[in-house]
Amino acid sequence: MSGVLYGVGLGPGDPELMTLRAHRLIAGAQVVAYPSLAGGESFARSIAAGAIPAGAREIVMDVPMTTERAPAQAAYDAGAAEIAGELAAGRDVVCLCEGDPFFYGSFMYIFARLSGRFEVEVVPGVTSITTCAARAGMPLAARNERLTVLPGPLPEAELRARIEGAESVAIMKVGRHLEKLRGVIGDLGLAERAVYIERASLPDEVVCPLSEAPGTAPYFSMILLMKGADPWL
Amino acid sequence: MSGVLYGVGLGPGDPELMTLRAHRLIAGAQVVAYPSLAGGESFARSIAAGAIPAGAREIVMDVPMTTERAPAQAAYDAGAAEIAGELAAGRDVVCLCEGDPFFYGSFMYIFARLSGRFEVEVVPGVTSITTCAARAGMPLAARNERLTVLPGPLPEAELRARIEGAESVAIMKVGRHLEKLRGVIGDLGLAERAVYIERASLPDEVVCPLSEAPGTAPYFSMILLMKGADPWL
Ligand SMILES: C[S@@+](CC[C@H](N)C(=O)[O-])C[C@H]1O[C@@H](n2cnc3c(N)ncnc32)[C@H](O)[C@@H]1O
Ligand SMILES: C[S@@+](CC[C@H](N)C(=O)[O-])C[C@H]1O[C@@H](n2cnc3c(N)ncnc32)[C@H](O)[C@@H]1O
Repeated sequence: MSGVLYGVGLGPGDPELMTLRAHRLIAGAQVVAYPSLAGGESFARSIAAGAIPAGAREIVMDVPMTTERAPAQAAYDAGAAEIAGELAAGRDVVCLCEGDPFFYGSFMYIFARLSGRFEVEVVPGVTSITTCAARAGMPLAARNERLTVLPGPLPEAELRARIEGAESVAIMKVGRHLEKLRGVIGDLGLAERAVYIERASLPDEVVCPLSEAPGTAPYFSMILLMKGADPWL
Repeated sequence: MSGVLYGVGLGPGDPELMTLRAHRLIAGAQVVAYPSLAGGESFARSIAAGAIPAGAREIVMDVPMTTERAPAQAAYDAGAAEIAGELAAGRDVVCLCEGDPFFYGSFMYIFARLSGRFEVEVVPGVTSITTCAARAGMPLAARNERLTVLPGPLPEAELRARIEGAESVAIMKVGRHLEKLRGVIGDLGLAERAVYIERASLPDEVVCPLSEAPGTAPYFSMILLMKGADPWL
């Protein structure tokens, strides 16, 4: 009997925004696995830390942050092989994922490699977009409004076109794309409707109008843009 | 000293998909408030039921499901007034919200009415879109992909145009719009990429290709559409 692979969403950072189910699975885990970006501390692990049992085995996937994909793919290949070894030996593995596993989450790379061979359960988590909206006091979408989620690394011309055709917009992965995004949003005359959020739900969270955003943004930052008139009354 | 208004996301239906924070706030509540659609049972209350203390006061907002907005607005006006009375008397109020409060959630109507006068904290919850993706084994978006969320009641021509220009698509509020949506998706040649999900995470959940979806859909149903080639390997 093989073990079950759990892809567990941890929410945006505050450990209290973990689901009861995530907490129960982690607290009962024999084996946990998680990515660690570029050799640094693992954000996923830091969210779950208080719940991981002392004796659990930890599988760390060291994912290099390069624009080429081969190095990251090799890291996921190696991680998936280690996880597969545990599953084949009959042990469940709890894979930790910041936010939600299937919303721009790294778990989908493990899922792609192992879901054909093993039983997998994906446990959804609170995403960064609704957390940022909550912290900004800014409803994302109501009634028949559309919501568009755009990654900040998209080319400038594409961002411009997509934002122009959209209603509410959430822009992920702002980081080093902040200046480009500020330019596009300013050109479209939408600067006053844009909010910048950094490390939402964490103690050093930042929430401010985009015009007052710091000069450089960390990886865990987002811009929310509400284009309609306040439509939710 | 006025009380604090908490707008608490409960997740998609399975009570275990509530966050630890939602659970703690509900279990400690003196007053809970929630909408009940068209006089029926309240879905929000049913998710939270196991956590609501026996002695808590319950404020029920009976929201009629009409296409005109005035009757629903009157229900939120009345509910907000009752909630304001509790807050002014110094009692905290926990407002229960299916999914996430600011993602097509009813709490934003209460927020709009009371956030100027009282302290409000919005507690994000797991949304239906990532839950449906988890249950369908279908990642929503990876890397630099765009994600578009569309409400099913939009006019047919607009749905067609928006789906055509999109990558991943989540269509909310399918319900009585199922036939129209099936038509649009079929015309665009995308039927084989569409998954239908009903009551995700609940015991009577349905997950199937759109082509095998039942003839009628309940309100709590969704279509996910993945337009790219599997892009997450
Ligand atoms: C690889 S994606 C992971 C998204 C995650 N799976 C989710 O469900 O939100 C990383 C991006 O998510 C956003 N993000 C994640 N956590 C965040 C937080 N606490 N505050 C602001 N943005 C966050 C940032 O835009 C970041 O660049
Ligand atoms: C008024 S919106 C509320 C959305 C909710 N606030 C959220 O965060 O998911 C209602 C729509 O959400 C979707 N929905 C909510 N719960 C669902 C579930 N358990 N399964 C499938 N769809 C669901 C359906 O499309 C439904 O018509």
